[in-house]
Amino acid sequence: IEEQNDKALKKQLDAYHYADIAEILDELNLDNAIYIIKLLGSETTSDILMELDEDNREKVLKNLSAKEIAEEVEELDTDDAADIIAELSEERQQAVIDQIEDEEHKAEITELLAYDEDTAGSLMAKELVKVYETWTVAGCMRRIRGQAQEVTRVHSIYVVNKEEKLIGRLSLKDLIVAKSEQKISDLVKVNVDYVNVNDDVEDVAKIMAKYDLEAIPVVDDNKTLLGRITIDDIVDVLKEEADKDYQMAAGITGDVEADDSIFELTKARLPWLFLGLVGGVGAFLIMEGFEGLFTGKAVILFFFTPLIAAMAGNVGVQSSAIIVQGLANDDVRGSVNSRLIKEMLLAALNGFILAIFLFLFVWAFKGEIITALAISISLVAVIIVAGLIGTFVPLFLNKRGIDPAIATGPFITTSNDILGILLYFWIAKTILGI
Amino acid sequence: IEEQNDKALKKQLDAYHYADIAEILDELNLDNAIYIIKLLGSETTSDILMELDEDNREKVLKNLSAKEIAEEVEELDTDDAADIIAELSEERQQAVIDQIEDEEHKAEITELLAYDEDTAGSLMAKELVKVYETWTVAGCMRRIRGQAQEVTRVHSIYVVNKEEKLIGRLSLKDLIVAKSEQKISDLVKVNVDYVNVNDDVEDVAKIMAKYDLEAIPVVDDNKTLLGRITIDDIVDVLKEEADKDYQMAAGITGDVEADDSIFELTKARLPWLFLGLVGGVGAFLIMEGFEGLFTGKAVILFFFTPLIAAMAGNVGVQSSAIIVQGLANDDVRGSVNSRLIKEMLLAALNGFILAIFLFLFVWAFKGEIITALAISISLVAVIIVAGLIGTFVPLFLNKRGIDPAIATGPFITTSNDILGILLYFWIAKTILGI
Repeated sequence: IEEQNDKALKKQLDAYHYADIAEILDELNLDNAIYIIKLLGSETTSDILMELDEDNREKVLKNLSAKEIAEEVEELDTDDAADIIAELSEERQQAVIDQIEDEEHKAEITELLAYDEDTAGSLMAKELVKVYETWTVAGCMRRIRGQAQEVTRVHSIYVVNKEEKLIGRLSLKDLIVAKSEQKISDLVKVNVDYVNVNDDVEDVAKIMAKYDLEAIPVVDDNKTLLGRITIDDIVDVLKEEADKDYQMAAGITGDVEADDSIFELTKARLPWLFLGLVGGVGAFLIMEGFEGLFTGKAVILFFFTPLIAAMAGNVGVQSSAIIVQGLANDDVRGSVNSRLIKEMLLAALNGFILAIFLFLFVWAFKGEIITALAISISLVAVIIVAGLIGTFVPLFLNKRGIDPAIATGPFITTSNDILGILLYFWIAKTILGI
Repeated sequence: IEEQNDKALKKQLDAYHYADIAEILDELNLDNAIYIIKLLGSETTSDILMELDEDNREKVLKNLSAKEIAEEVEELDTDDAADIIAELSEERQQAVIDQIEDEEHKAEITELLAYDEDTAGSLMAKELVKVYETWTVAGCMRRIRGQAQEVTRVHSIYVVNKEEKLIGRLSLKDLIVAKSEQKISDLVKVNVDYVNVNDDVEDVAKIMAKYDLEAIPVVDDNKTLLGRITIDDIVDVLKEEADKDYQMAAGITGDVEADDSIFELTKARLPWLFLGLVGGVGAFLIMEGFEGLFTGKAVILFFFTPLIAAMAGNVGVQSSAIIVQGLANDDVRGSVNSRLIKEMLLAALNGFILAIFLFLFVWAFKGEIITALAISISLVAVIIVAGLIGTFVPLFLNKRGIDPAIATGPFITTSNDILGILLYFWIAKTILGI
């Protein structure tokens, strides 16, 4: 590959799928990657660009001229083209757009760039097959032949009226099965799902997953057909969403990957660790405050603080994870109170079982029933409170319109740690009568 | 609804999408749900059944006779039909299959039931549009009209040779754009992705996501075309996978939901809490062992154990989550050693920054430089070791063919807690020269 044997290399690469070439390029150094991209025709390289890692794509784009990028962009569907351009700096965006020769493509990309990230508009493509309700099947087939060549995959044919308003859909199958003199208005399925261009992408994903759709039309407030969103974009949204929630639960922010730089990874991880440090200092201050109380035999209470903190953290994470996931899947029903009561019963049951083991251990190990009892009863109380906090916080955040996923992980662990230790010492103190 | 006013109710429900009716039924009690299912025709109810919660579906199916279930199943695509039947007990499975009238449907469902869960075979449907390479476009269109009526959505048309072996694919679009006298063998795209019927569903999902496919043909070892998998099934697989990993990271097993019974939730949560309890007892034993060493002013060391445990746990969860996610997305490259060195540098950097704050706090609060130093240096060591364990364990599990997702959450937290506290006391003891 390094020998710059252009012809042989080109022939070899032509046999690969663009997604595979992208994977190879991700592993090469920048110079070689750019050399290969310039070697291949823009029809293939535009697809390769889309599949590259975001960081690598940024580097490659920096090394291409505005004209070269415009050539790549011309080969792409409008949604992918807009995504690529959106990654450039503002001045370069304009430079690339100016270089696009196809006026229609240029206008469509400019339109797509105007939509906010996270709205349906940012995901949609302008390419679609559209027919008017007044056409006949035969006329329709003729025109579709023209339109379809521009559209990578035809999912549905959207039917509009004279004012370009969406009135229904047709499948290619329906069209093939129909008689050629039938009118489109007789065939159209008016029961069509659609989304507004300003809808949140997560809601679009939910609708498409719920109704098993492969494409959904996007309309404006007047129901004018603007574009369509296909399921492959939604698959990416779902994956990103899942990755983000998973990272958030582990105390990582900012969508980092294992291959990112140490500096980026530190930026994503350090804030949460700092939160843990503050929590630990809080726990220290509490224990310091109780220092005078527990002397002699009661000093053993201090040795159980890691256990208490760990249990409070674990129960909190468990209950919040279930609520966060339930909210994401829309299957948290019933009132907040009924949730809290259920979690209380659940935590009490789990806590009671665990407390029996702890009681037996302390009793056997130390031979002091009263200390064993104090520790075990505190454990049950700590678990119940931790479960209630873990349930309440995400429900509360969700009601306030804040992403509840932030509640799992270090946030809930730290607050439950402190609260758990405080509760533990306070209950033990009361039971031991100090 | 409760008035059993059949006609009005039926009319009202007919206006809804089946996924919405399923949502309504999920909220009703069993008797009402069954009443509504018996009221509606099997064409709608079969789709509703597929969308019901698994638990509710099980209850509904228990209340239908084998004949009634067979009627529902006849309306479904083979993949959904097989899924429903697979949920029944073995005797009922046979009873339902015997009641299916369409012999071809019966044979296909029986074939699908034979594939293992988690293989491509378990997801695939037998319904597809298949043409022979020797046909012409015109002949093809005629036959497709027949086949397509049985297939809910035509994604691709698969082209086979005389021996039923997959040789390529065609899109409906290609067919429409082509001239009617052309031969299929001139149009066929031979560069077709396919999966083996025994491939793992997760690998199928990866391939379909990577190449943005909406359907993929499934073949046996001889490349004989057996069926196809569509992207909507893959969306479900991806969601389930993400949910499972998220729960595992939070210390929950067994795919539970917020609405499950307290008993089921306890079964999913208690084992992990028990692990935490054992870890806490371990921490207790370590501290007990060091009790004699740290008296007087050094007693303050005990008050920082929750901090040390929390930091060890948090760092371990962060680093394991990044590796687990990287492994799932296939972007963990390079050797295990380079990973470990990177994580060591990262942990050292984070640990050093955090240790400075902790040092300043202890110094200001207690005025003892040597104690502050001992605690801070231990913290750095604990964070580095926690990061290394968090990186190594999932990589190791993955090499051994065990799902690395199990490594995040309580498992890594607990082991890091214990090890962290042990390391902390040991280093502090050395520095303080006790």
